[in-house]
Amino acid sequence: MERSDLISILGFVAAFCTTVSFVPQALRVIKTKQTKDLSLVMYSMFNVGITLWLVYGVLILAWPIIIANMITLGLTLTILALKIKYK
Amino acid sequence: MERSDLISILGFVAAFCTTVSFVPQALRVIKTKQTKDLSLVMYSMFNVGITLWLVYGVLILAWPIIIANMITLGLTLTILALKIKYK
Repeated sequence: MERSDLISILGFVAAFCTTVSFVPQALRVIKTKQTKDLSLVMYSMFNVGITLWLVYGVLILAWPIIIANMITLGLTLTILALKIKYK
Repeated sequence: MERSDLISILGFVAAFCTTVSFVPQALRVIKTKQTKDLSLVMYSMFNVGITLWLVYGVLILAWPIIIANMITLGLTLTILALKIKYK
């Protein structure tokens, strides 16, 4: 296997982990309706950052960046909305 | 300003937001010692993903990816350690 292939696989696995990691946090918040310990500032800033990464991916037409950040944005916006709802 | 310069600035601002966003969450956990609502699975998976992004950045010698993920890893490892300590 080429070195560049290995690096691409590494990038894919890294993107998969950082994207899918928000699923357990979203499920926990949906189930428990407890968000007191989550930082509103963190999720607000993080959502801004992920939105910018999405625009960045569109501008350079990088589908891995577009897809990963669309999924992450869906999850982190859900967490942010529930944080605002349940305080 | 060139289009490519604008895109680079957008990437830098996106990286800044997603990296620095963990500061308020880390400060909150350090101050309150309350981590019940944080998902252990999320921060475990997220740390694995950020570590892989760091290795990815080293392999392609991309300093923005290396620096952003080193800072993020420091913050998210702190949050994970406190989550394990305080449950």
